[in-house]
Amino acid sequence: MDQIKIFAPASVANVSCGFDVLGFCLDPVGDEMLIRKTNASGVKITKIEGQNLPLDVKKNVAGVAAEALLKAHPTQSGFEIEIHKKIKAGSGIGSSAASAAGAVFGINELLGKPYTAHELIAFAMEGEGLASGSAHADNVAPVLMGGITLVRSINPVDVIQLPTPKALTAVILHPKIELKTMHAREIIKKNVTMEKAIQQWGNLGAFVSALFNEDYDLMSRSLKDEIVEPMRSLLIPEFESLKKASIDAGALGFGISGSGPSVYALTKGIDSAQKISNAINKVISSIGIDFEIHISKINEQGIKILTN
Amino acid sequence: MDQIKIFAPASVANVSCGFDVLGFCLDPVGDEMLIRKTNASGVKITKIEGQNLPLDVKKNVAGVAAEALLKAHPTQSGFEIEIHKKIKAGSGIGSSAASAAGAVFGINELLGKPYTAHELIAFAMEGEGLASGSAHADNVAPVLMGGITLVRSINPVDVIQLPTPKALTAVILHPKIELKTMHAREIIKKNVTMEKAIQQWGNLGAFVSALFNEDYDLMSRSLKDEIVEPMRSLLIPEFESLKKASIDAGALGFGISGSGPSVYALTKGIDSAQKISNAINKVISSIGIDFEIHISKINEQGIKILTN
Repeated sequence: MDQIKIFAPASVANVSCGFDVLGFCLDPVGDEMLIRKTNASGVKITKIEGQNLPLDVKKNVAGVAAEALLKAHPTQSGFEIEIHKKIKAGSGIGSSAASAAGAVFGINELLGKPYTAHELIAFAMEGEGLASGSAHADNVAPVLMGGITLVRSINPVDVIQLPTPKALTAVILHPKIELKTMHAREIIKKNVTMEKAIQQWGNLGAFVSALFNEDYDLMSRSLKDEIVEPMRSLLIPEFESLKKASIDAGALGFGISGSGPSVYALTKGIDSAQKISNAINKVISSIGIDFEIHISKINEQGIKILTN
Repeated sequence: MDQIKIFAPASVANVSCGFDVLGFCLDPVGDEMLIRKTNASGVKITKIEGQNLPLDVKKNVAGVAAEALLKAHPTQSGFEIEIHKKIKAGSGIGSSAASAAGAVFGINELLGKPYTAHELIAFAMEGEGLASGSAHADNVAPVLMGGITLVRSINPVDVIQLPTPKALTAVILHPKIELKTMHAREIIKKNVTMEKAIQQWGNLGAFVSALFNEDYDLMSRSLKDEIVEPMRSLLIPEFESLKKASIDAGALGFGISGSGPSVYALTKGIDSAQKISNAINKVISSIGIDFEIHISKINEQGIKILTN
């Protein structure tokens, strides 16, 4: 096999009570990537469509991730990467993660799979480090492993696959405003009160239990974030109105996706997701900014191979 | 039924990554309580054996908890409580919780069970408030519900029963030194760093997942506490040596039980628990303080009715 075409999906990280640890993989939104094995050595990014991103390997998340893999696994071959971006950079649904994870996934396939999906996380994280200023795994993990993942530790990488309740469905709103991840990181305080931290880990523990038991009521009670959301939500237009409209329309929870500006709602079933989508549409339409709304099942597979 | 004799077990709270939320119920250690329905109104504590504790209802955790229940559920009958204490107050294995939970459990039985175990938690918590200065549920919840519990919220009370892996076994060391819960609370900082808080909720989420999957390796990786243990362990003689000896002998995790001075180890199986018990015994024997060691399965039933 000398080339592979893949679909590298978007993802939601910082899922409310799971700030920095919990993420899930989306289905309908994602980039396409073509990766070719060549006789030249090293990594080249030959084409990027759909976004104005650097072709320079050292300045591109896919390039940095690919080089991290090849550093650990030296080979005579070289690799060319074409990226057809459909996830907008800075949207908060894992644009850089899709590219970084896609690059290492594709190269791993072309090398005959020397690494497991879990092992690929460390390489993809190096790409993420370029994008956001700090290496994090909560987007690349669900893209590589599929479904819902919990990052217990990044050093060493220890990511746990959580069960995906069958009817769990996400609604994503991407308001087309600029919001740099680094800026959104700066707004977060260095310390939190013990009281709020205890609430957060109580909620996360409960949410994990709810996923195992498919207990949608408990998911709803535990999808809360009183630590990061109160600060970051200030950067997102109409956040509180969107949240209220979603919950009123039946959402189990509503929060910021990644570091924003995208927001997510989780709900039970496609019909409910459609109602939430309509409610969100109504609120966001009233303020005259461009936006996109996606309805998505949780993608249990992660990256998909389109053709070899 | 006019009287009930019950076994009110000890419990471990503040289980490492689950500070203030996670607790489990012990089997062999506990108080016996006799509760009688009478024609007089109100609550009386008629006898306390084994400990020097106040008979005054307003100053006794069992009395305060019992009165909280009767305030919510007025009745013509009165109740007399006898307590045969075997759990030493201030030991860190839920002495006050056993009395508070036992009182409301017994009265609820004699009233024909108007409340579920989950509903009784709120009343028992009022007794706990008297003992420690703040109402908390992480000991009374596992005593009333059995097994391993997670307190998602105390206001309103929302406690989740977690699964108990079959082979999970606890070793408890009670070094007989005085350590007041209030003092142990004072040593805890009001704020924690975001970094450590994220580690803690990542570990707790992973531990909950490990309980569902009976993944003992993951239990071991996630039974950590970098927030409270570094401070409170300073109050416990030879804590680090005891921890090392336990882990070397095969413990999945080791930490402070409640607010100490008792410490706990969790492991897989009775044989391993016996090895850990021997290792702990060796360390604690060398410093010349009185102590007790208990080996206990997780008590999935909680309070037991001995006779009516």
